[in-house]
Amino acid sequence: MNANANLITERPTFVTHLECSWTGEIYEADKPHNLSRAGKPLLVRYDLKGVRAALSKDELSQRPNDLWRWRELLPVRRAADIVSLGETTTPLVPLARSKVGGGGEVLVKDEGRLPTGSFKARGLVMAVSMAKAFGIGHLAMPSNGNAGAALAAYASRAGMRATVFCPEDTPEINLSEIALQGASVYRVNGLIDDCGKLVAQGRETTGWFDVSTLKEPYRIEGKKTMGLELAEQLGWELPDVIFYPTGGGTGLIGMWKAFDELEAIGFIGSKRPRMVAVQAEGCAPMVRAFEDGTETATRWENAHTLAWGIRVPQAVGDFLILRAVRDSGGFAMAVSDEAITDAVASVARDDGLLLSPEGGATVVAYRQALTDGRVRRDERVVLFNCATGLKYPLPPMHASLDRTKPIDFAKLA
Amino acid sequence: MNANANLITERPTFVTHLECSWTGEIYEADKPHNLSRAGKPLLVRYDLKGVRAALSKDELSQRPNDLWRWRELLPVRRAADIVSLGETTTPLVPLARSKVGGGGEVLVKDEGRLPTGSFKARGLVMAVSMAKAFGIGHLAMPSNGNAGAALAAYASRAGMRATVFCPEDTPEINLSEIALQGASVYRVNGLIDDCGKLVAQGRETTGWFDVSTLKEPYRIEGKKTMGLELAEQLGWELPDVIFYPTGGGTGLIGMWKAFDELEAIGFIGSKRPRMVAVQAEGCAPMVRAFEDGTETATRWENAHTLAWGIRVPQAVGDFLILRAVRDSGGFAMAVSDEAITDAVASVARDDGLLLSPEGGATVVAYRQALTDGRVRRDERVVLFNCATGLKYPLPPMHASLDRTKPIDFAKLA
Repeated sequence: MNANANLITERPTFVTHLECSWTGEIYEADKPHNLSRAGKPLLVRYDLKGVRAALSKDELSQRPNDLWRWRELLPVRRAADIVSLGETTTPLVPLARSKVGGGGEVLVKDEGRLPTGSFKARGLVMAVSMAKAFGIGHLAMPSNGNAGAALAAYASRAGMRATVFCPEDTPEINLSEIALQGASVYRVNGLIDDCGKLVAQGRETTGWFDVSTLKEPYRIEGKKTMGLELAEQLGWELPDVIFYPTGGGTGLIGMWKAFDELEAIGFIGSKRPRMVAVQAEGCAPMVRAFEDGTETATRWENAHTLAWGIRVPQAVGDFLILRAVRDSGGFAMAVSDEAITDAVASVARDDGLLLSPEGGATVVAYRQALTDGRVRRDERVVLFNCATGLKYPLPPMHASLDRTKPIDFAKLA
Repeated sequence: MNANANLITERPTFVTHLECSWTGEIYEADKPHNLSRAGKPLLVRYDLKGVRAALSKDELSQRPNDLWRWRELLPVRRAADIVSLGETTTPLVPLARSKVGGGGEVLVKDEGRLPTGSFKARGLVMAVSMAKAFGIGHLAMPSNGNAGAALAAYASRAGMRATVFCPEDTPEINLSEIALQGASVYRVNGLIDDCGKLVAQGRETTGWFDVSTLKEPYRIEGKKTMGLELAEQLGWELPDVIFYPTGGGTGLIGMWKAFDELEAIGFIGSKRPRMVAVQAEGCAPMVRAFEDGTETATRWENAHTLAWGIRVPQAVGDFLILRAVRDSGGFAMAVSDEAITDAVASVARDDGLLLSPEGGATVVAYRQALTDGRVRRDERVVLFNCATGLKYPLPPMHASLDRTKPIDFAKLA
């Protein structure tokens, strides 16, 4: 097996068209698109009967372990358009000592292992590869940090320009990473949706292509590979519950789409996990809409949380998130920053796994859901850790020893 | 295929004994060891005929993609002793736009994808698993940062104590990571070998077990999986040249051992890569010894380099590094901090790959070796990026936009 077989093998492609997620209106596949005429996300549709005939589980299992193994369910038509930095399958790491309650199996999908250290790589590798296929030269987006870093990396690799707008309190490490990886990055006095407005405003003058969350159709196709991978890793038996830290929600929507596609090609049955959208108490528009029973969500004013990745006051895919959560029998819940900090610390200390705050939020939500009975102890649960904890400012540590003086080793025993 | 099959399947084990790397003296396998009576590293020996009969390439290819797939060539005897955080196979990412000269294939083995973001995970997962098998309760080591982080993570996961001593100028991010992951960590006014002396001094009082580089036999067994993986990923055809950032040198020694073991079990032939030990100009004891033609290396005084991971003034495995380099027809070379910084910047900017400074050092060395003719353009080269660039202080970035005022988008085009 050639380790880069997925990147160089020409493949049959099965994309038939794109479809407005709100009206169902059909759009042509092989040209660039942003939102539909209704201002809603476009979804990529495949000839799933064709995929079913072309792909077997056995064939799949022979391919190298990266997201490009899902060739038939991805939109890239020519291998030459793939812009890769090594998108390896991420591991499922069980919580062991830090697991609460015991009994249930709690698996952390550790997305920090992807290029640029976050799950944003999945979406951006697909968006940039498609942009390359379309001959686009300049991409722009708003970002709380991780998406911008992934965009910068893939755009540079493809020889494209990238421009990223970040909220002004975005951590220095994220801005530096974006800039080092060749993008133009600006701090903006506002939140991520304010940054998004700049991308829209500058579009005509600059000619850049808007790759904001769900405002182009391919990031979701990349993100759906989380669901594809999960199904295969668990032997084609989906978990009982998935806790997903939800900002723009692309991954949650993408996984939900992936499960339907896997069922259509005969790889799984009709069983679905309950999808749980996890947000922060300081920015919980989906939780509010879920509890209010509304189909869409209104903007969350004065959004604040240390979990930057889910500080998204308003999501263009709000109705898709809410539909997936409701159709799955799942729920939405908000957790406090204080509990997030505690959870990150306890999982690092007890299990050696340094989660991102967003990943920590799923731990908190799981613990709360166990307590309030919405999840049972005998259920298999997957928590998404969307980025490595190394991408976030860590609390300082200051213990020192002077080796030129006598050391009381008994105190270190 | 069960995704964690490598972690739960009981395996035949083939370790026969340990052997002093200097005198050849034999040591019993199934008990804890530090250095040999000669004060030199111990090497683990296997019944390779047994492995040859037990393991086929086809069988191997069916197993999940993590370092535990190499069951028969690893020292852990019982699956229950494995302490895992998901040690997935790391990708080989080709340099594309930042490649110099063109022609040759330059593959970066991106070790930053491992748990705790560095290749130190390979060695420590093995050392900690073996310590668990031996019932050891407290581990200690000196570290420039990454090894300590890996030790902390695995020790915490195994429920063991860990104590780490770091040079006082170790970056804050590394100290914080080590502390968060449950270890006791101390800054010490000195370099890594000074820190190592504290581990030795405190041993009797504290009862901790010394897991310093090459001072216990199993880190090298973990590190050798870099060589095993590389061989398999390249279709059992080793590359022409390997550039390895060399501090303690465990990985270089380990890969060289791995290649011999692979040949003994019939997976590869006698072809070997030229092994190139890359050091920094401010700390180049191996380069000096290589050029002086000596069998061992003397301590490098006043060591300094921004590539912390290779700031190792004196290595207990010096003669093993020098032997591997010489036997392979390779060489040792030193690069400047300035060139490292430039290389990290150029690879990030042009190829979207944020290397560690140590990884950047291999890029510099490759470029220099191309120029001086020690490597030809038609040779296939592997560079080791030993950690994610996110674990190192990044240069600050400060461009901002005021969204409340008119923005001249033409300047951003």
